[in-house]
Amino acid sequence: MAGIFTKIANGEIPSYKCAENDKFYAFLDINPLVKGHTLVIPRREEDYIFDLTDEELAEMTVFAKKVAQAIKKAYPCIKVGMAVLGLEVPHAHIHLIPMQNEKDMIFSNPKLKLTDEEFKEISDRIYAEFSK
Amino acid sequence: MAGIFTKIANGEIPSYKCAENDKFYAFLDINPLVKGHTLVIPRREEDYIFDLTDEELAEMTVFAKKVAQAIKKAYPCIKVGMAVLGLEVPHAHIHLIPMQNEKDMIFSNPKLKLTDEEFKEISDRIYAEFSK
Repeated sequence: MAGIFTKIANGEIPSYKCAENDKFYAFLDINPLVKGHTLVIPRREEDYIFDLTDEELAEMTVFAKKVAQAIKKAYPCIKVGMAVLGLEVPHAHIHLIPMQNEKDMIFSNPKLKLTDEEFKEISDRIYAEFSK
Repeated sequence: MAGIFTKIANGEIPSYKCAENDKFYAFLDINPLVKGHTLVIPRREEDYIFDLTDEELAEMTVFAKKVAQAIKKAYPCIKVGMAVLGLEVPHAHIHLIPMQNEKDMIFSNPKLKLTDEEFKEISDRIYAEFSK
């Protein structure tokens, strides 16, 4: 049975889309550490990121780079940080987090509460930069 | 002038080596969150990981995967987590962290204090697995 992230990538569950191509999909984390906190997933469902083939992993990281560049344009920051934890949802995902400070990457920090309109505005800005 | 991580990769500053090839170098973080916490760097000095070329980034991630596989054999864990923050040392580096728990990836956690002998034993175990 398809997992939640596969359903998101297929549009069966709504998400705030930031970027996509035929192999990967990027959307906003709905429990963001900061504005612009985005998740990148492969369309092919694989639990552990290091179980992807070398080619898939390489392509996913290059896709994540392009998403990170779009995030940085939409949300000016010092750098976009990257993290893969993956003990909660069994579908490999890269967190991309625009950082003003290393503390922005502390996953135990309280999450932002944003409205549907705010999420839409953020994902639209990132998607527009990605599509340029 | 060469930065500290370049000097480490060149052997001018000692480190606890975990893996290497002609383009990348892996060594233990001396302020580890858990045993086996390793850093992967490109030999070519570049501050921001997403300023690496697509090819460099792809190769670095595939190298990191092989290091992560060695870490997981040396230090059985649920998954090896990955993180790139990079606001402290201006030389792109991937943290690889064997996780028993998502909390193992919280960078504000207190760091382990290990002896020189413990660091040597850890890096030797990872290096041996990497070299198999």
